[in-house]
Amino acid sequence: MLPTPKKFFLTAAGAEGDSSLTAFDNALLAGRIGNINLIRVSSILPPGAEYDPQLIIPPGSLVPIAYGYIISGEPGELIAAAVGVGFSADTFGVIMEFSGRCGRDEAEARIKGMLQEAFLSRKMPLVDIKIASVEHRVKKIGCALAAVPLWY
Amino acid sequence: MLPTPKKFFLTAAGAEGDSSLTAFDNALLAGRIGNINLIRVSSILPPGAEYDPQLIIPPGSLVPIAYGYIISGEPGELIAAAVGVGFSADTFGVIMEFSGRCGRDEAEARIKGMLQEAFLSRKMPLVDIKIASVEHRVKKIGCALAAVPLWY
Amino acid sequence: MLPTPKKFFLTAAGAEGDSSLTAFDNALLAGRIGNINLIRVSSILPPGAEYDPQLIIPPGSLVPIAYGYIISGEPGELIAAAVGVGFSADTFGVIMEFSGRCGRDEAEARIKGMLQEAFLSRKMPLVDIKIASVEHRVKKIGCALAAVPLWY
Repeated sequence: MLPTPKKFFLTAAGAEGDSSLTAFDNALLAGRIGNINLIRVSSILPPGAEYDPQLIIPPGSLVPIAYGYIISGEPGELIAAAVGVGFSADTFGVIMEFSGRCGRDEAEARIKGMLQEAFLSRKMPLVDIKIASVEHRVKKIGCALAAVPLWY
Repeated sequence: MLPTPKKFFLTAAGAEGDSSLTAFDNALLAGRIGNINLIRVSSILPPGAEYDPQLIIPPGSLVPIAYGYIISGEPGELIAAAVGVGFSADTFGVIMEFSGRCGRDEAEARIKGMLQEAFLSRKMPLVDIKIASVEHRVKKIGCALAAVPLWY
Repeated sequence: MLPTPKKFFLTAAGAEGDSSLTAFDNALLAGRIGNINLIRVSSILPPGAEYDPQLIIPPGSLVPIAYGYIISGEPGELIAAAVGVGFSADTFGVIMEFSGRCGRDEAEARIKGMLQEAFLSRKMPLVDIKIASVEHRVKKIGCALAAVPLWY
């Protein structure tokens, strides 16, 4: 089997680029995850995974990651992205992502609502939440991105 | 290299949620794959992979999975998703996914057609098919999802 | 951790299919990557990864891969896809993907621009580029796809 991740952190960043893909790339760089290979996952925090905001991941690594992002080519538009990790008392957690044409307050509120619903659906008490969010005012082509990288 | 999966099963489920992402999450839960980390793959059944409908996958595991889904916010709309595995005589198989605004009969028919085409393209005889499908009548925000998790 | 890939190649191909998914499948087959499990990554060439255009990957393998593609159901439309790998002097590289309703010259030009921007953003000199691209004139349902499979 593929090894289950043991560590995680949260990050969120906004950036501009000359194209959609480079705006995304620049947001990844601004969020400290630009030089790794992102493998997108839907999105459970493994039991016992440890929060490590200082994690250094070697360039080119294959990194399981939950993320949400939005790219806009409308100058002046406000975009936002948020991720949240909901923690249970003693087992796995749940990760939710959101992005939209709104500010970070709304993005964070949406994350909290989704985490509450996710724990209700699982009949598990939601004992804590960690959130990372960003809002970005588009200049030319902008990206707002929020992510939970999982690592070892 | 990443270890090649050795087991698989099929699942399909529909569910409602307060948001698109929680409707998706609830469909995963209803399909018994809600507490794992899905890594989406396009989509070959490895040679010798064994069908195991009773597979229990530990929470938080990284699980390669082929899936199709549709989310709708139109109350009353009928949505469907299907997956199919086409088996060869003695080597790998092919997995196809479909989702749309239709019933499960149409979703299954589309899967069969795609599997026939996939085997024709590979000049391999298609000796058997397994399909899982679901249709769901949307109440508020609904998701229909069908998946083939691959495991070890 | 997941093992970091050590080899790569580039491929690009166009194909027709009876459906969107089989057009995609046929483009993968035409590009020699049709019988493996693609795990999409965003998209760094690991340090020291070796170019091996003759790589044979066993069927059903889980293969990290960066790719861009476009599917069109407009008969007569010209579609194109390109990927590019930008190489640094002595560390990791960057992979960019592009697809659009255009010819391969435009697709390649866009890739070059994105790679230049990506290296500028990283303050690294761009010492070499490899590109693979394809254009495809749609007959019924067509797909143009370009990819950088990473392997071991």
